[in-house]
Amino acid sequence: MVKIGVDIISGESDIKDLIKGCVDAVKEEDDIEVVAIGKKELFSPFLKQKSFFWWDNSKNMNRISILDASEVITMEDNPLRALKEKKNSSIVVGLEAHKRMEIDAFFSPGNTGAIVVAASIIMGRTKGVKKPALATVVPNRAGKVNLLLDVGASAECDVNDLVKFAIMGRIYFREMLGVRNPKIGLLNIGSESHKGSALLRETHKRLSAMDVNFIGNVEGRDIFIDKADVIVADGLNGNNTLKVMEGTAQTITAILSQSIKSDPMATIAIPLYQNAIKKLKEILDPETYGGVPLLGMNGNIFIGHGTSGRKAIKQGILAAAKAVRHDLLGNINRRLEELHLVS
Amino acid sequence: MVKIGVDIISGESDIKDLIKGCVDAVKEEDDIEVVAIGKKELFSPFLKQKSFFWWDNSKNMNRISILDASEVITMEDNPLRALKEKKNSSIVVGLEAHKRMEIDAFFSPGNTGAIVVAASIIMGRTKGVKKPALATVVPNRAGKVNLLLDVGASAECDVNDLVKFAIMGRIYFREMLGVRNPKIGLLNIGSESHKGSALLRETHKRLSAMDVNFIGNVEGRDIFIDKADVIVADGLNGNNTLKVMEGTAQTITAILSQSIKSDPMATIAIPLYQNAIKKLKEILDPETYGGVPLLGMNGNIFIGHGTSGRKAIKQGILAAAKAVRHDLLGNINRRLEELHLVS
Repeated sequence: MVKIGVDIISGESDIKDLIKGCVDAVKEEDDIEVVAIGKKELFSPFLKQKSFFWWDNSKNMNRISILDASEVITMEDNPLRALKEKKNSSIVVGLEAHKRMEIDAFFSPGNTGAIVVAASIIMGRTKGVKKPALATVVPNRAGKVNLLLDVGASAECDVNDLVKFAIMGRIYFREMLGVRNPKIGLLNIGSESHKGSALLRETHKRLSAMDVNFIGNVEGRDIFIDKADVIVADGLNGNNTLKVMEGTAQTITAILSQSIKSDPMATIAIPLYQNAIKKLKEILDPETYGGVPLLGMNGNIFIGHGTSGRKAIKQGILAAAKAVRHDLLGNINRRLEELHLVS
Repeated sequence: MVKIGVDIISGESDIKDLIKGCVDAVKEEDDIEVVAIGKKELFSPFLKQKSFFWWDNSKNMNRISILDASEVITMEDNPLRALKEKKNSSIVVGLEAHKRMEIDAFFSPGNTGAIVVAASIIMGRTKGVKKPALATVVPNRAGKVNLLLDVGASAECDVNDLVKFAIMGRIYFREMLGVRNPKIGLLNIGSESHKGSALLRETHKRLSAMDVNFIGNVEGRDIFIDKADVIVADGLNGNNTLKVMEGTAQTITAILSQSIKSDPMATIAIPLYQNAIKKLKEILDPETYGGVPLLGMNGNIFIGHGTSGRKAIKQGILAAAKAVRHDLLGNINRRLEELHLVS
């Protein structure tokens, strides 16, 4: 059995949807147990309505239990202050349960900053790792995906941090996406090794000397092609990259929609165009790939988007369960030791 | 008269197109003189064919002259080495003419790195400025434009550099885009002042204390909305932002095209869609706004995209002429002095 703690009160979606996501996950995979973390009184009514789950197998029902947490850290809360003041929040309660090994992984669609800070304080970091990294999957034009990290956990990084992001990202990509020898790229503003900042030049040198299948610098436009599997950046550049992608996508679809609608011939074309936009959203939707792993912590922690609904919660649980089964953490630890990077 | 030196041999487009762009510019504005910089023998044949210019006003013809430069710095050349080895290149010849005040501005669609390095060596920097910045216009969804700088001249910046980018960007926006009191935003990964790196936090503090209409941090997605007029970033983040925009735009239009074409109903819709894509490209096309200014140099220097054709050359010349007429350089110098930032 793989026991996944799921924070069902920190997200922005309806709690019903989140619980349905938990149910979907235990239905999908026999070895998953979900510990739903939240206010007991919010959750209990649903457990009594079996019909709510569209499901009548009481054996499966036993694989969902509740861990009571009475407080919510909101998206607006200041992380440090919230952790001090809300000891009974689902994020603190969940991470403490993970630390006590009552759950094998923790998944939350809550305040990213609060989860990163709480995980650092409660669970601590993997041996040898100073800065954690959030790794997100970006679909590429070849129909595959690339992994970009860090996308916002660590705004300021040194060479050692970036080298460890490369190693953690590689193990994650190998174990979770089944690619035997993932290619590492370094996000920079030119392909030549002398490009970019001193930090990037030095990181380029270090990665080139290591056995990590380093293919060199990649540029912002290469994120969407099948060049590197894992793309390493500091949290500032990585997070900005995601936000620019989002803004560009919104802007382009807005301009195209307007332009198509303003064409007098376009009435017939609008449904086709909307269909295409829908497909685009599916491809770009991070929910398809479950939560985003917070790598470098002494635990299996996945963070979902605040708006995560039923599908995203299910995918997040499945991803967390896979990480546990593949001993992601053990693999990362062993690889860092092999490369003498734990001290 | 405003005398603009135009490098007509470093770009990738046909020389005919570049010369047509020069002709278009002097036709459009009476006070512009163009000094075309390049191999005399390439240019002279066109001067003899009056019909080539679609234009029969010999008075205007006198406003185009040639400055001979026999060598070309290619896009692949290493900037420093090229400057040492190609003393007769159009970039070196043009910048030296600018330094001797034989031309009031220099515009080149050549190797950006080489132009930045050559300008630093030949012309030097504006008093008080240590790092130059390339500033590019980004159209926003409100139908206006924002200015993003630096987009690649200075990968590594300190607080003083970013503060000066803000001031130079503001003067540029005011003089060139006619906005009386442009709003400054700092590109960061969150709106709160404590977000981002130490560099960004300190820059936020400095800009907040200055009389520069600073509206605080803006995020990658805010580049496309009417929030800040001038968005300040170091060259690493700024250049990566441009490349991510480019990659996202290509990916989205590719996915949408494919999706529309694969729809059996879509035959009628394809021309409409292609029309919309064409409009999109026009809006996003940096050529519409002329060359990109290299701010912080002791001269008026504009850089065009390597593929700049007739329209881009014309627009670049018009932009450079406007910068000269508005005494961009003098305005920047005076403002830096007023703020005691010249020492």
